[in-house]
Amino acid sequence: MVKAVVPARGMRDILPKDKAKRDAILDTIRATYRRNGFTEIETPAIEPLSRLRSNQGGENESMLFEILRRGLDPKEPVAPADATDLALRYDLTVPLTRFYASHAAELPSVFRSLQIGSVWRAERPQKGRFRQFTQCDIDVIGEAGILAEVDLLVSTLQAFDALGMGDDVTLLVNDRRVLQDLLEAAGVEAASVPETLIALDKLDKIGPDGVAAEVSRKGLADDDVVRRLLDTITALQDQAGPEDAPLRTGRVDVGGTEVGLYDLPAIVAAVVAVLPDARVAFDASLVRGMGYYTGPIFEIRHTAGSGSVAGGGRYDAVVGKWLGRDVPACGFSIGFERIIDLLPDPVAAARRIALLHGDADPAELLRLREGLQADGASVTLVRPPRKVSGTFFDGLVAQGFTHVADARPGQDPHALRELSRP
Amino acid sequence: MVKAVVPARGMRDILPKDKAKRDAILDTIRATYRRNGFTEIETPAIEPLSRLRSNQGGENESMLFEILRRGLDPKEPVAPADATDLALRYDLTVPLTRFYASHAAELPSVFRSLQIGSVWRAERPQKGRFRQFTQCDIDVIGEAGILAEVDLLVSTLQAFDALGMGDDVTLLVNDRRVLQDLLEAAGVEAASVPETLIALDKLDKIGPDGVAAEVSRKGLADDDVVRRLLDTITALQDQAGPEDAPLRTGRVDVGGTEVGLYDLPAIVAAVVAVLPDARVAFDASLVRGMGYYTGPIFEIRHTAGSGSVAGGGRYDAVVGKWLGRDVPACGFSIGFERIIDLLPDPVAAARRIALLHGDADPAELLRLREGLQADGASVTLVRPPRKVSGTFFDGLVAQGFTHVADARPGQDPHALRELSRP
Repeated sequence: MVKAVVPARGMRDILPKDKAKRDAILDTIRATYRRNGFTEIETPAIEPLSRLRSNQGGENESMLFEILRRGLDPKEPVAPADATDLALRYDLTVPLTRFYASHAAELPSVFRSLQIGSVWRAERPQKGRFRQFTQCDIDVIGEAGILAEVDLLVSTLQAFDALGMGDDVTLLVNDRRVLQDLLEAAGVEAASVPETLIALDKLDKIGPDGVAAEVSRKGLADDDVVRRLLDTITALQDQAGPEDAPLRTGRVDVGGTEVGLYDLPAIVAAVVAVLPDARVAFDASLVRGMGYYTGPIFEIRHTAGSGSVAGGGRYDAVVGKWLGRDVPACGFSIGFERIIDLLPDPVAAARRIALLHGDADPAELLRLREGLQADGASVTLVRPPRKVSGTFFDGLVAQGFTHVADARPGQDPHALRELSRP
Repeated sequence: MVKAVVPARGMRDILPKDKAKRDAILDTIRATYRRNGFTEIETPAIEPLSRLRSNQGGENESMLFEILRRGLDPKEPVAPADATDLALRYDLTVPLTRFYASHAAELPSVFRSLQIGSVWRAERPQKGRFRQFTQCDIDVIGEAGILAEVDLLVSTLQAFDALGMGDDVTLLVNDRRVLQDLLEAAGVEAASVPETLIALDKLDKIGPDGVAAEVSRKGLADDDVVRRLLDTITALQDQAGPEDAPLRTGRVDVGGTEVGLYDLPAIVAAVVAVLPDARVAFDASLVRGMGYYTGPIFEIRHTAGSGSVAGGGRYDAVVGKWLGRDVPACGFSIGFERIIDLLPDPVAAARRIALLHGDADPAELLRLREGLQADGASVTLVRPPRKVSGTFFDGLVAQGFTHVADARPGQDPHALRELSRP
């Protein structure tokens, strides 16, 4: 009895059918961004620990896969804290900002980046969550104006459209400065704003009463302050579209105090001007977890799920930290692993032919294979069992084959037969 | 003064132009194998240390990036040998064989696999060698006959042909069993064969005299034995093609003793029957480093370089080790990082337009961008400096742009101008 051979804990293999689906989705996303002038880059999976522990990754920084220093004596005990110098990246934003700092001189003054790659987080393994997964990030670095936001939002909505999800998604926008002003107008002390935002971020999950309870428990604000804040936000939660008061007037009333919406009306107006069918709304409860956002923040939600399928915002202070000068930046990340299950399997663009054979002459077989490859068809050599049954052909359909040719003795290998789907 | 920000030691970033070239090459390779029925899979970057240290990776096993166990007390000293449980993969073959063992029941009985991915080796960094690099492997698992070899060889030669390198490559074949027989016919004791092979593997680098000296120094065989062996091998080194004696007769004479060539004549005959223009030769000095090969081995060499651009062979014993039953397997790996510099930059398939702009209305600009995207053109927003000089346009050409449109005040944004190459 041999022990089951499985991937490392929390890791997974991707089988041919799933791989084909993933690649088809990524190709569609790539094509959209490339058309809009985004260029793809690649950064190493490994970064120095010091860069990955710079307090910008929130709880992700506690889920690092750390890499043992090379050259240690394997038997000489050492404190784990001193035993590592590198780690696997937990997202693509830290590597991107490091990349920009390393290569700013070789890059255009406004750099539109597309980066697709694996990231690693040592989370507690659970169903459907893996410790290695793919992220898909687009960023505009070096553009201080709202052109960056508008470009990212339009391009990403176009990508969802190209994936056939255009009618199922809604873009929600907010701004970190608006949140700050809203909280202060309601009466939250400046010092309590960050922690109050963390509570507010849970509004979706625990509701207004839950948020109020948490704010009260932590002594962040008086009950009437929280009530005023939550009343304002929930009143706005019926997703205020471009024609509704806040985005039209550019301001929100918080118990008599007016709070401005900064660039949100202009951003939303531009997005809707380019994409008239897009569903866009101002959502005052949108917080986005990461601490580094400095301006507009955005999220795309799908009708089928409660979570977001894309999220991002402006983070003007991060790149400058490496480079020593201010560099405006704005990014959007598509929740690639989340959208896979929301999309149907791709329809094969060309024939996929199973070429059945026995112990034939290899050269003859491969020449036959080549002869069947017209119009981009792919042809797979398949050695069927001695007795071929309906189950066998069902298996071919399940593997994605569309046609069968038969090169076994007594068969006409040029007679292509279409497989019927069950 | 800010410290230079660079990737981790031995790691590199891939900039847009290089990334585009790499992806174009990989797409060509993928298209060839997919047409021939190979399906792509993905395995995790991380595998358990126990699997990566199974004595099949040779010196690669000493270059592992090991990963710290999770949950260790950061301050409690521990021997490095006990501090790690996982590592980054050093090749794609170990993960593939583990993948097959994990999923055999879900895969076709003959599985044609394509795997492209990063691997990591903590080598001493040197110019042009990196600690993370891309491998591109194709394997046929479950086919015991020469159909596996012929398919891998034909498909890989077709891939080089699709890359435009068909006229510059030569396929060399040998067989581990032929090597064993050759050595024994020359008089090498069976027990000394493995170490003698290691010396023989250096023939290219140190010449016959160097090999003879090493064999003599290590006391592996008498001088007349080595001389007989090297005479036979160097006599055959003028690359014996399909029409030459060894492949025609299927045997080699070693000082009066005949050694058979097993399946090599049949394999070569089939490859040449499918691809009449292919250059294929028997090379008795071909050893291939890895210890796991059990039958035919092969390598593709490029006229421009001394090293190989692809290599592989049959390894019938590896998969069975995980699975507990024998599974024949044969693989070929393209030296992706080596062929990049041998290939010219890809010619842009579609227009790449730089759309110059100032502080224009974002919506207007993006609508203009969309209008210019006919025929698959990509359009990049470019904010030029106040004074636009020839250097600026040269920079656009260097970035790969083919055309310019100008949306700045006073210009006709629809007038597309072709950029002249210097």
